[in-house]
Amino acid sequence: MSKKAVQGATHHLCMPVESRKQAARRLAIAKGHLESIQKMLDDPEIYCIDVLRQLKAVQGALSRAGEVVLRGHLEAHVTTAHERGDQGRIVEELMEALKYH
Amino acid sequence: MSKKAVQGATHHLCMPVESRKQAARRLAIAKGHLESIQKMLDDPEIYCIDVLRQLKAVQGALSRAGEVVLRGHLEAHVTTAHERGDQGRIVEELMEALKYH
Amino acid sequence: MSKKAVQGATHHLCMPVESRKQAARRLAIAKGHLESIQKMLDDPEIYCIDVLRQLKAVQGALSRAGEVVLRGHLEAHVTTAHERGDQGRIVEELMEALKYH
Amino acid sequence: MSKKAVQGATHHLCMPVESRKQAARRLAIAKGHLESIQKMLDDPEIYCIDVLRQLKAVQGALSRAGEVVLRGHLEAHVTTAHERGDQGRIVEELMEALKYH
Repeated sequence: MSKKAVQGATHHLCMPVESRKQAARRLAIAKGHLESIQKMLDDPEIYCIDVLRQLKAVQGALSRAGEVVLRGHLEAHVTTAHERGDQGRIVEELMEALKYH
Repeated sequence: MSKKAVQGATHHLCMPVESRKQAARRLAIAKGHLESIQKMLDDPEIYCIDVLRQLKAVQGALSRAGEVVLRGHLEAHVTTAHERGDQGRIVEELMEALKYH
Repeated sequence: MSKKAVQGATHHLCMPVESRKQAARRLAIAKGHLESIQKMLDDPEIYCIDVLRQLKAVQGALSRAGEVVLRGHLEAHVTTAHERGDQGRIVEELMEALKYH
Repeated sequence: MSKKAVQGATHHLCMPVESRKQAARRLAIAKGHLESIQKMLDDPEIYCIDVLRQLKAVQGALSRAGEVVLRGHLEAHVTTAHERGDQGRIVEELMEALKYH
């Protein structure tokens, strides 16, 4: 039995493929923003407030990636938890992941 | 008159060099985290909650970069604003930058 | 047909009684904090930072009330949405309620 | 020597009177919202999402109160810190108060 099959047996909830693709797109945007801040920080004339504004833009892009992942998780795994019978674990780990979100 | 002197005349507040270096270090950490999430998203077996946890780690690294920038700005530019006479602009732009922070 | 029955027909999801009681307890704590800030603000000698700290304490108490409500909602309504067949609406309104949370 | 004079000697930074009045007005609004949620929680038919929405409105009112206090603090105390010579303490306590804000 392959390693993959064994993992699948103990943990069968996989992220929906569409969520993975959308989240990857948004992460690529966030990474582009982040790299442009890295360039800003090489400029000795850069102004603090301009850096703070760009950091906020990256945080926004990451939040939107998080929303994509959360929506996919709710649709694919949380709304079906009672049927599968794992609602206890599903609620605990989601509450933990949303803390300070 | 040099380009620097002209810029200095219209906008003489530059980010403290120590803040720039510290913020750059923290951004590099955030970028490393972000790239590891990009790899996670290539794995069809990945679980949503694990992605959310890693996204939270990147958000934390970015917040710490933002704290470095903010602290440098407060020390170098905000606490001296009344002496320079630009406290009106300094307060407005800081309030705007802190919104939803 | 009673008013209650009609409401029940169009909107049958009620907050779990235990969540309502716990949330009410936490709101009472938040209200007590808030009233003590109101008294602080009558004192002309009060210091801004002390008010900000107390406001943060109230925000914390409200967040904990929100966590109680969210947990009850996940357990009672979200994990059972697929069985009821209203998962579309349940996910939309939860995503909206969690925005900027 | 009066009690007030002694306090003034050790801690002479008082919240600007206009900030105190504006913050008090916004807190009164927040308290009104909070009391209406307390009434909602007495209704056994209430729906979780409606409570979450109202909690978000109270959090918003408190944030606006916090913005008033922060703006008054920046104007009255932070932009003048270098002149007074207490910029070290002013920056530390502000960074602490803004954490998780």
